[in-house]
Amino acid sequence: MTDPRGHPAYSDISTFLHLPWVWKREEIEAAHPDIAIVGAPFDVSVTNRPGARFGPRAIRNAGNLTATSFHHLGLQIEPFKFVSAIDTGDALCVPGSIERSHDAIRAKLRELLEAAPQCVPMVMGGDHSITYPSASVVADHHNRRVGIVHFDAHADAADESWGVFLSHGTPMRRLIENGHVAGKNFVQVGLRGYWPPPAVMDWMAEHGLRTHLMAEVEQRGFDAVLREAIEQALEGVDSVYLSVDVDVMDPAFAPGTGTPEPGGLSARELLRAVRHIVLQIPLAGLDVVEVSPPYDAAGITAEAAHRVLCEAISALAVRKRG
Amino acid sequence: MTDPRGHPAYSDISTFLHLPWVWKREEIEAAHPDIAIVGAPFDVSVTNRPGARFGPRAIRNAGNLTATSFHHLGLQIEPFKFVSAIDTGDALCVPGSIERSHDAIRAKLRELLEAAPQCVPMVMGGDHSITYPSASVVADHHNRRVGIVHFDAHADAADESWGVFLSHGTPMRRLIENGHVAGKNFVQVGLRGYWPPPAVMDWMAEHGLRTHLMAEVEQRGFDAVLREAIEQALEGVDSVYLSVDVDVMDPAFAPGTGTPEPGGLSARELLRAVRHIVLQIPLAGLDVVEVSPPYDAAGITAEAAHRVLCEAISALAVRKRG
Amino acid sequence: MTDPRGHPAYSDISTFLHLPWVWKREEIEAAHPDIAIVGAPFDVSVTNRPGARFGPRAIRNAGNLTATSFHHLGLQIEPFKFVSAIDTGDALCVPGSIERSHDAIRAKLRELLEAAPQCVPMVMGGDHSITYPSASVVADHHNRRVGIVHFDAHADAADESWGVFLSHGTPMRRLIENGHVAGKNFVQVGLRGYWPPPAVMDWMAEHGLRTHLMAEVEQRGFDAVLREAIEQALEGVDSVYLSVDVDVMDPAFAPGTGTPEPGGLSARELLRAVRHIVLQIPLAGLDVVEVSPPYDAAGITAEAAHRVLCEAISALAVRKRG
Amino acid sequence: MTDPRGHPAYSDISTFLHLPWVWKREEIEAAHPDIAIVGAPFDVSVTNRPGARFGPRAIRNAGNLTATSFHHLGLQIEPFKFVSAIDTGDALCVPGSIERSHDAIRAKLRELLEAAPQCVPMVMGGDHSITYPSASVVADHHNRRVGIVHFDAHADAADESWGVFLSHGTPMRRLIENGHVAGKNFVQVGLRGYWPPPAVMDWMAEHGLRTHLMAEVEQRGFDAVLREAIEQALEGVDSVYLSVDVDVMDPAFAPGTGTPEPGGLSARELLRAVRHIVLQIPLAGLDVVEVSPPYDAAGITAEAAHRVLCEAISALAVRKRG
Amino acid sequence: MTDPRGHPAYSDISTFLHLPWVWKREEIEAAHPDIAIVGAPFDVSVTNRPGARFGPRAIRNAGNLTATSFHHLGLQIEPFKFVSAIDTGDALCVPGSIERSHDAIRAKLRELLEAAPQCVPMVMGGDHSITYPSASVVADHHNRRVGIVHFDAHADAADESWGVFLSHGTPMRRLIENGHVAGKNFVQVGLRGYWPPPAVMDWMAEHGLRTHLMAEVEQRGFDAVLREAIEQALEGVDSVYLSVDVDVMDPAFAPGTGTPEPGGLSARELLRAVRHIVLQIPLAGLDVVEVSPPYDAAGITAEAAHRVLCEAISALAVRKRG
Amino acid sequence: MTDPRGHPAYSDISTFLHLPWVWKREEIEAAHPDIAIVGAPFDVSVTNRPGARFGPRAIRNAGNLTATSFHHLGLQIEPFKFVSAIDTGDALCVPGSIERSHDAIRAKLRELLEAAPQCVPMVMGGDHSITYPSASVVADHHNRRVGIVHFDAHADAADESWGVFLSHGTPMRRLIENGHVAGKNFVQVGLRGYWPPPAVMDWMAEHGLRTHLMAEVEQRGFDAVLREAIEQALEGVDSVYLSVDVDVMDPAFAPGTGTPEPGGLSARELLRAVRHIVLQIPLAGLDVVEVSPPYDAAGITAEAAHRVLCEAISALAVRKRG
Repeated sequence: MTDPRGHPAYSDISTFLHLPWVWKREEIEAAHPDIAIVGAPFDVSVTNRPGARFGPRAIRNAGNLTATSFHHLGLQIEPFKFVSAIDTGDALCVPGSIERSHDAIRAKLRELLEAAPQCVPMVMGGDHSITYPSASVVADHHNRRVGIVHFDAHADAADESWGVFLSHGTPMRRLIENGHVAGKNFVQVGLRGYWPPPAVMDWMAEHGLRTHLMAEVEQRGFDAVLREAIEQALEGVDSVYLSVDVDVMDPAFAPGTGTPEPGGLSARELLRAVRHIVLQIPLAGLDVVEVSPPYDAAGITAEAAHRVLCEAISALAVRKRG
Repeated sequence: MTDPRGHPAYSDISTFLHLPWVWKREEIEAAHPDIAIVGAPFDVSVTNRPGARFGPRAIRNAGNLTATSFHHLGLQIEPFKFVSAIDTGDALCVPGSIERSHDAIRAKLRELLEAAPQCVPMVMGGDHSITYPSASVVADHHNRRVGIVHFDAHADAADESWGVFLSHGTPMRRLIENGHVAGKNFVQVGLRGYWPPPAVMDWMAEHGLRTHLMAEVEQRGFDAVLREAIEQALEGVDSVYLSVDVDVMDPAFAPGTGTPEPGGLSARELLRAVRHIVLQIPLAGLDVVEVSPPYDAAGITAEAAHRVLCEAISALAVRKRG
Repeated sequence: MTDPRGHPAYSDISTFLHLPWVWKREEIEAAHPDIAIVGAPFDVSVTNRPGARFGPRAIRNAGNLTATSFHHLGLQIEPFKFVSAIDTGDALCVPGSIERSHDAIRAKLRELLEAAPQCVPMVMGGDHSITYPSASVVADHHNRRVGIVHFDAHADAADESWGVFLSHGTPMRRLIENGHVAGKNFVQVGLRGYWPPPAVMDWMAEHGLRTHLMAEVEQRGFDAVLREAIEQALEGVDSVYLSVDVDVMDPAFAPGTGTPEPGGLSARELLRAVRHIVLQIPLAGLDVVEVSPPYDAAGITAEAAHRVLCEAISALAVRKRG
Repeated sequence: MTDPRGHPAYSDISTFLHLPWVWKREEIEAAHPDIAIVGAPFDVSVTNRPGARFGPRAIRNAGNLTATSFHHLGLQIEPFKFVSAIDTGDALCVPGSIERSHDAIRAKLRELLEAAPQCVPMVMGGDHSITYPSASVVADHHNRRVGIVHFDAHADAADESWGVFLSHGTPMRRLIENGHVAGKNFVQVGLRGYWPPPAVMDWMAEHGLRTHLMAEVEQRGFDAVLREAIEQALEGVDSVYLSVDVDVMDPAFAPGTGTPEPGGLSARELLRAVRHIVLQIPLAGLDVVEVSPPYDAAGITAEAAHRVLCEAISALAVRKRG
Repeated sequence: MTDPRGHPAYSDISTFLHLPWVWKREEIEAAHPDIAIVGAPFDVSVTNRPGARFGPRAIRNAGNLTATSFHHLGLQIEPFKFVSAIDTGDALCVPGSIERSHDAIRAKLRELLEAAPQCVPMVMGGDHSITYPSASVVADHHNRRVGIVHFDAHADAADESWGVFLSHGTPMRRLIENGHVAGKNFVQVGLRGYWPPPAVMDWMAEHGLRTHLMAEVEQRGFDAVLREAIEQALEGVDSVYLSVDVDVMDPAFAPGTGTPEPGGLSARELLRAVRHIVLQIPLAGLDVVEVSPPYDAAGITAEAAHRVLCEAISALAVRKRG
Repeated sequence: MTDPRGHPAYSDISTFLHLPWVWKREEIEAAHPDIAIVGAPFDVSVTNRPGARFGPRAIRNAGNLTATSFHHLGLQIEPFKFVSAIDTGDALCVPGSIERSHDAIRAKLRELLEAAPQCVPMVMGGDHSITYPSASVVADHHNRRVGIVHFDAHADAADESWGVFLSHGTPMRRLIENGHVAGKNFVQVGLRGYWPPPAVMDWMAEHGLRTHLMAEVEQRGFDAVLREAIEQALEGVDSVYLSVDVDVMDPAFAPGTGTPEPGGLSARELLRAVRHIVLQIPLAGLDVVEVSPPYDAAGITAEAAHRVLCEAISALAVRKRG
């Protein structure tokens, strides 16, 4: 029968770019992937509009192409001639429990990195709380010599949110407090709006996080800010984990998200930033989070999140090609 | 300035039917309400599509009338000439925590019933897990001599769901196990589909629950089933708590819900059932749950849930008028 | 070039069933139509959700067929072999003014009936206020020997609504007060909910209106109620004007409307009723109102309104065929 | 790593009920399935609203359960204890070509039935044209001793539609003309509206098709019509192929479809009919078609189509259990 | 019971940022607010897509924060430590009558300014016609020494629209003609498209309005235009009234509006402009209008309108802090 | 009766800007139009999300103005004082057949240009495959001395797509291969993403197409790219055919399209580009394609496409005025 890769993107069982679905340990080992796509279908910790549990499926369904016919026009590369990739399915997040869902994400990523220590995990959220289990496993796998570039409207570095310590408002705090990543190796881009309160901003300053507000982007221009962010991210680490909350984009570009904040980046700015970062800095891992399909009538948010992955994959391939 | 009650339904601050917003204990006492509307904006325990946290606001926004111009055509009564009612706002459910949200619902209802022991609480969910805190407080307030009539596609009597004991699939089990309501005083109407597994159905049978599947409705007709359900509900209790999951209706009538199950009741059947039950059995409390506005494009699910409350209020007024 | 009638329904300039667009007086005279479709794109008088100004276009766009390939399966007739019909475009309703819009509707219908005194106007609303100008012109054209069969969730017979005398809540009052139609020749079917207040119901009773609530439908069955309504409508008049507010249907069948009221008729019941009435009573005119496309995501309300017209046209053709 | 079957329905790679994805011939043989789910993502032949190419994915995503926890309440059976099933992915339908897409469906089903001659294929459309390749392969596999029970608003038996002979308005004509199924073994239920023209109805009568219009359902009741349809379907064949166009349901229950026709069956009626038919007649194959997700805002049409499959599977299991 | 301010933004009775709902004169006096939020739920005068009557509720529901936890990151201020604010509910606009609705807005604002002469009213529309009653009261309150900065795609300075003099296309004409504001103190930014006709543009030029078309923004850049607009607005007045029609933004950023005009500002540009203006010019009052929720599927237009208020409040607080 | 031109835009039978509907040859000749609007309601050749068959009606319904009150603010012209225009309805595209639909488009345009050889056809798609029949007829009409400026995310110059040679991915190849337009007279702007494969890009380079990727726009700025594109388009031809695929815009500005590609132009950029091109280069014809209304919840994509036509018409009028 026909190979699934030969189908139109919308046809057949849906995996990311119709990549092979590989989830058994021995099969992952055999595949020896450079890149592994992982879903984290979870939204229990959101503080506003839920729905991100349906993010991984929406991102897998996005796009009009499959891996076999994929050609990055701007970079003039067919990435899958240079990198191998699998879709390893989802972590077994469970409805109603943050702790067990985070455990499942940790377990999934650890097992993945044991089976394929060389691979770059690319995690599709889910809400932003999943960055805590995800980035901590990746950072530990790289001996904690990993920085984080964090695109977001929100700092997500509160101590707790409504008494919840594993909320989508707290993952960056947990990562730093627990030593997985050093504060000074945290670069944030796109912050705006009216949160978090001053005490959190103070904590962030004390711990050396580099924050680039949209106000700065408006004044200095995005290119200047991006250049500086890349420089900062390179200081004293071997590689970076890139965490992209789609709400860093203006809601015009990402309406399908839980806490939309007007005044953000365009998709053009974000995709270029992802591409440039991965071209210039070794990538340890990546997540793209907070796609909420119930609010994404025309699916454009899932498309943008899908392209974040496509840009990162393509840039990785350029690096690998050399 | 103009009294809020004089506004069109869609104008001014939104309370249920533009009822007065009364939330301080002394003011509740002074109002001496027969009926108190309470919101439980919570959906952390859903196993499928979330969004019910926005249910209370959607139900308050529904309808085209306010309490001052409300006339039940079928019952030929202006209910608010016979019953007094308040909107007491929402319980302080918190994002990300089932336990603390359930505690908040319990606290809200206990304080309400202390301030107004005579009143009938009508709770707008939220997901169905809120029936556990809500009905337990109401049942205990009435010395546990309360039966439950439960309209739902799902039995919601599992022991746990994905390891979560306070899931929206388990409230009925908790109520019975913890002695708030006796199994034999539980009458379920509208069950269908492919859940729960046989072990749960067996547990229900052992504990004497009376279950009326849609298959029975299809064979015997809804009128016969309803008559029997009312008789069963009257056995050996002083009053009933009515719990209406909007998914008891077919998704045509209630698309805006988390676990739609085709093949259900029509709104016509459900509203008539609510009216008849409240006309015939003393009502201790009521909840209407699982309205998920993100899936309710034209708002018709919130309208139907709003009418469940309107029918109950009107029937209560008929009883009070005598 | 190709005749517009030969196009798929969704192609080319949109007229009702791709009927010829005829709006100049002399061309109407020449067409000598049995039926004329007229739009009344107006919603200034709604008391809740507006949008009905877009109703005529949505109804014209509905359906998958055109007049040339139209065959009523149940009645086994190709109506347009027996009746001729035109789409005469819209009355020039203006944004922001009820009075001038009603004047425009009156003018449009008078001119139409002067040019084609034999024709049955079928008016697509617009909100229900348009029944006042529309039915008054039709009734006067027939020497006020016209009854009205009125399908609606709401009696629309209030004296005023928020101080507005030409509201969509008042057209039936105006028609009766101004002598266009006698109260006893008014038959209402489908009333439910919580409006109007007792004083209006009393006025209706005093003026002899026959009202059939949904509560009566639930008790006696729709067939019995429909039979009686048809008998009542035939008493002492030469013909009837049929006014169909789509909200007589349950919101499941008509979500795209301004004041949805759960617990209504199914489309199956309504369409059968329209067919039976027109088969049995001479039709003077018809309107179908309150289609609000912004709330009609899948267009099913416009489809149902379109079928109200199709059923009436088909039944008229059966009568004409004899 | 975790077995995909252990995930919540919305998690992990999406197959129907999380059934194993088995598409290689030798693996199908090894699985020896009683039931095989097949997608036909195709909508090139629709005459109105397209979108059905996304039907298979939407149906796979529907439901809140997986095969491992599936218990039919009404039939009191856990079907997958008695029948084995696989999801074999989609036929390789191609955008823009009817012929090649139909070829792909034929090839997929032939290969399936060669690998698993005992299995019952259950095909998820796609538009209704796919019934021609699908049912012809199934009928031929059973030596053309197969009848068809066809639920639909439309007869789909035209000779051509806009000059297209493989349109979604013609599959039943092709099946009969080409001898795959005899006209007298065709039973149609739910026809209504204004199509096809008399010549097609005449052709159908000449070829002995049994047609049950909604007008008949309204007069005789659905139970009587269903009983008769089952009797007719049993005459002179060994088994039946069941073809369910979701537009047989009223648009209230199936808004997400291409040619909605008001006045149809309820989901309650349809699901009961499917269950009864499969309980009483040997099933050779089945398709459920015309789910168009772009028009299915709350997903309720996909849910209903999913339940058509669930009811058929459950009834098959009852037969197999004996 | 819990203070409403302690709830998540989506919980409890909805007021703007959970500000106290204060509507009785004596309570307003006692509150001595710096800022008062007022709703004007009105859309009778729109010339295209209605729905803005639901704007105030949608704006109140927007955002993920409440006044107690509000921290403007860019301005580094917690505004409610420096300014006090109330939500005073809606003006009693009535369906179907422009005149009486405008009267109600005037009455509401006059009573507010009598009770709190120091406060800055911030009015949530409603369609743009409400600027006439709103700005005239505010200007008169400040002895007509008020300029207007007007962000809009449309000049809204026609003499009449379809014969309606209080249309949403005419408020600026009425304000100038009736002497509330001088033409030369009118600064318009964002005009584009194909309206109004030359005669209106001529009238505007004669009366000295300063108009900045998008064409100018495209040529000179937004920063230059904004600087000039601020300078112009400061000439010869004591303070400004800021009127923001959300359609000044491109429909990408504000799809939920009545007369979308492609080619507009981004949210980033608009919010920055509002912030800069209020930082630099004393603010007498503000309105944000033309949010039409039925067209705002993901709510992003209401979010942007909400942020217009948040930016103005924060900038006011900076000025007050000094 | 009232002239259709005097209606509000949303009222009466819908033609583009309420232009006269003229489709008979002799009437076209008599009208002697400068501009003719033509619809091509066709989407059979799309490779992803269909729906563009409904594009022409959506574009006709867009806008809030009619030809009689149309004033381009930026260009300070009332175009219809200088150019005459008609809406000539749709080509008779048929469901299910690419070939016959393309034939119908060719026939429609040839007949139009025979009746009105001086006119500029402006075609509303439909999917992008319609550019092949449309531009070939226009180019041949101008003796093949026509260049093409092509705004698109995709090069649409593949040899075939899924074996289909008349796909929406191939029209530019067909135009060049068949000699209607020379490759060097092809200027493409806005390409991005991951398609077509290198072989197609190589073919394009061999044939001298000038391609401007978004990557170039990001680096050089849009103004510089646009200037160069205009220069290139002017080389060696008499006039240009402008083909605008709305997906050249970012999905934020054009969500309602079939193959959205994040990272595109803003509406502001596109509309300015169209205006500048038509001001500077003689226009032979134009199409705007790939508006897919089922994905265009708020209609903003249809609005933008409508404005592409409005900008071109206005610029043409400026040229004609001289």
